[in-house]
Amino acid sequence: MHYYKYEDLKDYAVRYFTRWGITPEDALIAAEVLLSADMRGVDSHGLIRLHSYYGSRLSRGQIDPTAPLSVVRETSATLAMDANNGLGHPAGVKTMRMCIARARQSGVAMATVRNSNHYGIAGYYAMMALPVDMIGVSFTNSGPLVAPTHGRKALLGTNPVAVAVPAGRNQPYVLDMATSIVPIGRITVFQKNGKQIPAGWGIDSNGNVTENPAEVLEGGALMPLGGVELMRGYKGYGLALMVDIFSGILAGSGFGELVYGADKPDTSRVGHFFAAIRIDAFRDPVDFKADMDNLIEMLKNSPKAAGEERIYIHGEKEFERAQHAEKEGVPLSEVTVRALSGAGEKDGVPFDLTPLKTD
Amino acid sequence: MHYYKYEDLKDYAVRYFTRWGITPEDALIAAEVLLSADMRGVDSHGLIRLHSYYGSRLSRGQIDPTAPLSVVRETSATLAMDANNGLGHPAGVKTMRMCIARARQSGVAMATVRNSNHYGIAGYYAMMALPVDMIGVSFTNSGPLVAPTHGRKALLGTNPVAVAVPAGRNQPYVLDMATSIVPIGRITVFQKNGKQIPAGWGIDSNGNVTENPAEVLEGGALMPLGGVELMRGYKGYGLALMVDIFSGILAGSGFGELVYGADKPDTSRVGHFFAAIRIDAFRDPVDFKADMDNLIEMLKNSPKAAGEERIYIHGEKEFERAQHAEKEGVPLSEVTVRALSGAGEKDGVPFDLTPLKTD
Repeated sequence: MHYYKYEDLKDYAVRYFTRWGITPEDALIAAEVLLSADMRGVDSHGLIRLHSYYGSRLSRGQIDPTAPLSVVRETSATLAMDANNGLGHPAGVKTMRMCIARARQSGVAMATVRNSNHYGIAGYYAMMALPVDMIGVSFTNSGPLVAPTHGRKALLGTNPVAVAVPAGRNQPYVLDMATSIVPIGRITVFQKNGKQIPAGWGIDSNGNVTENPAEVLEGGALMPLGGVELMRGYKGYGLALMVDIFSGILAGSGFGELVYGADKPDTSRVGHFFAAIRIDAFRDPVDFKADMDNLIEMLKNSPKAAGEERIYIHGEKEFERAQHAEKEGVPLSEVTVRALSGAGEKDGVPFDLTPLKTD
Repeated sequence: MHYYKYEDLKDYAVRYFTRWGITPEDALIAAEVLLSADMRGVDSHGLIRLHSYYGSRLSRGQIDPTAPLSVVRETSATLAMDANNGLGHPAGVKTMRMCIARARQSGVAMATVRNSNHYGIAGYYAMMALPVDMIGVSFTNSGPLVAPTHGRKALLGTNPVAVAVPAGRNQPYVLDMATSIVPIGRITVFQKNGKQIPAGWGIDSNGNVTENPAEVLEGGALMPLGGVELMRGYKGYGLALMVDIFSGILAGSGFGELVYGADKPDTSRVGHFFAAIRIDAFRDPVDFKADMDNLIEMLKNSPKAAGEERIYIHGEKEFERAQHAEKEGVPLSEVTVRALSGAGEKDGVPFDLTPLKTD
């Protein structure tokens, strides 16, 4: 791994985005969201996508760098927004800010965004609610990779659910989970390493469970959380569908196989859903946080399964990685550094940073 | 199965509840919620619980039959309610009605209920939003049966998530799922039949996966949706925790092992969470329902896995069962009829109904 200064990477990502006509304000937002993924150890959603997703789409005119974010409908506690095919991160951050402002007035608020693009880690937006003593919720749909139970065609995205809840002396609870068992990138890693995947992660083009990663990648599909019917995979399918309904259909955006789909192949039509919930609308936040600590400690201090040493709360590992990155620098893998160097060269924004250290 | 006239069963359940001092209004609500479970084929949550949960607790004074439902806090879009240890169904139905009324004003609304009791099927409350073109959400926590990932002690309930969404020419989407793989009742059925359970449904008292149902029931625990870590069971654990945070902690009710727990053994301290979302706050409901139909049909008409003939949408099987019950009568198993007869005799409300037919 190569460890870089956070400010250096942020400055670089801003330069990269502005090179494509993104405003400095939006570039800064996008840089911060991407870097939060690298900080938290979710490197699949970090700077490695700077060119592979964002730059490549911007260069082909598939993302509009100056698209306005517009209000389609609104009430005192709701917002329906249109990103007009702009970058997903500024659309997400600005909408979540507005959602939080409305929750301040009404107790709770919900917001949708249509015609957006990949917005990075869902958890980032949910976590925006934490400093103001709110619970944050963030869903997004994504391109079709998951087959419904009894089906064999990938029609739903890995459609993540993110929920962030403040605690007291403990770190907040931050659930940020794809509704598939694993993301498609995990299957690719097994294929690259010439390894079989565990039975249940994916199906082949006939809908049968396969341990061959190539069969999942070529005409097969990922399985929803739960896996096969015996293990209640239809619940994960139901959650993936719920996310598509909230962030695709309620938003008036793409849904199912129409996300990155055949109806408008040039645009991704990704949709997002956000909610902000003011804790003091329901009870005193001091009491709430004390109970969060009680529940977190009840779980963490409970007897461990044979061979296990630690019970985790959701988000805990990521907070530890972020604390480490704050001290030691933001870790980027060799693959990511090579991707940034290659794309930077090609796109006229050379990746000229010196790492703090390499191990 | 014995098939009864819906009105006969409703009348009987009302008589049973009022015998314990429940008001006729609340008894009617409780009867309707319980019967909706039998109608929809979720018989574990239907009339079989009339005595085993409700009557037995009422007879011991563990549920207050005349408890008022009071408002603890409120904003234009939120309600924090206290059931004061009353029956769960009237608390749930009245709170969801108020939540829907607030969503009519604000676009969305959320509500919590503290100090409640088992409220039957979560889906009932979510479905209350359907006739008024809203999306309904309902969570509840429940007694500890599920161990956290890496743990071996049951600390979380099977904590269901219910979401109901209107469609057009198709039946609504109604997700109503426990966040464990299976409910504890499934394990009991395998034990009674002398059968092994599939590996992954539960763990023994050491936290190891077991196929012996007795080991799950005696000191073991259910596994969260997803199962073992390799299959991402920590996501199901995260969802169970989310439900406990929303319906237990946000509500100011019991949580974790304190639901039916050691701190106040006489009361269950169950908490609920509800949300209502006005579709027209986000887009034209006609367009919304057309897209719901498109997504439902995209899924249902997609190619089937080898050996499968039909892809289901969540709630579809239950709607078909309810339609059947409307024509043929409400089906009650032999076990349920025997339970009703025994309890009715004991509690002075003889179960004197004649079935329409028996098969």
